[in-house]
Amino acid sequence: MSHPKTAYTPATHTTPPARFSHGVRKGNILQVAGQVGFLPAAEGVAPTPAGPGLREQTLQTFANVEAVLTEAGASWEDVVMTRVYLTDTAHFVEFNEIFNEYLADRVEVPGARTTVYVGLPAGLLIEIDAQAVLG
Amino acid sequence: MSHPKTAYTPATHTTPPARFSHGVRKGNILQVAGQVGFLPAAEGVAPTPAGPGLREQTLQTFANVEAVLTEAGASWEDVVMTRVYLTDTAHFVEFNEIFNEYLADRVEVPGARTTVYVGLPAGLLIEIDAQAVLG
Amino acid sequence: MSHPKTAYTPATHTTPPARFSHGVRKGNILQVAGQVGFLPAAEGVAPTPAGPGLREQTLQTFANVEAVLTEAGASWEDVVMTRVYLTDTAHFVEFNEIFNEYLADRVEVPGARTTVYVGLPAGLLIEIDAQAVLG
Repeated sequence: MSHPKTAYTPATHTTPPARFSHGVRKGNILQVAGQVGFLPAAEGVAPTPAGPGLREQTLQTFANVEAVLTEAGASWEDVVMTRVYLTDTAHFVEFNEIFNEYLADRVEVPGARTTVYVGLPAGLLIEIDAQAVLG
Repeated sequence: MSHPKTAYTPATHTTPPARFSHGVRKGNILQVAGQVGFLPAAEGVAPTPAGPGLREQTLQTFANVEAVLTEAGASWEDVVMTRVYLTDTAHFVEFNEIFNEYLADRVEVPGARTTVYVGLPAGLLIEIDAQAVLG
Repeated sequence: MSHPKTAYTPATHTTPPARFSHGVRKGNILQVAGQVGFLPAAEGVAPTPAGPGLREQTLQTFANVEAVLTEAGASWEDVVMTRVYLTDTAHFVEFNEIFNEYLADRVEVPGARTTVYVGLPAGLLIEIDAQAVLG
């Protein structure tokens, strides 16, 4: 017998650009796909990142991750790993401030994290994915 | 008592360049190592990526991931996360077309995905790893 | 009922630069955060990478991952996935030699691995994270 697999798609989310799910659970593992700082989806409007700066885009990215967690009945407390993709090492200090501020009241035992610097499509400064263990 | 750990190495695969396994299962987790678009291993021939373009290399990379899944008795339906490493943001649209086409008949509930742009060894345009939850 | 979540922080480790844990376990999953080659923490001294070269920094990075595993009662044998972030493709061959040497007596069934090339803060040549399955 195989565990069922369930996809989670918050109503606020833009449609994924390909055949993947914003969040999926199988067994005890909930995986949130790489989220970026797109504003809530609006019909007829192309996906648009929050702005103008790193702060707004980061907070929107966190909100998008959290929306998937919530949709799956999970919270940041269930998250064991957050992968942060930044595009500029100069953003590290400000990002950490926002990260700490955002999670301050959301998590008691912080999960692990890896932060690396990669390329992202034009206009995107940050991407975050997360894995939670449930049950 | 600890779960046994099992390595999976498809016969078609080139030997890993270091002490790691193409696929490994422990407990309910099956992890497929980062796969690239190398053609099936041939004795005395250095690992060679499929070509000439992104399409051929991507399809070979998918086939290499799938070979590990199959060897472990798993399928794309068990995969909760696919990590895609591309080298050029200009490849995103074409990659998504190939991704959708490849998975169309292979998965009912799509897993999550993260795509970022990194550096890879010369000649490689793409690398993909995947995590499945079994049992 | 939810699995408890436990953070692991080896005494030798520098304080994380933000609200995350060097290692965390929930259920059967132990996740080690991205480790770099910082020398053991010393009071009043800023985090300093081992040097002068790739070898020293890599070995220190491995030691830092291992310290988290040990703190959590785990070992390399429990690790199913190691993610290696290098900054220069020219380091691949030497890195693999060190990787093989380090793991030679530490693991019987090697885990999976993905290696990609990214940007890291100045002075850092390598970052590694790892996921283990326990129980």
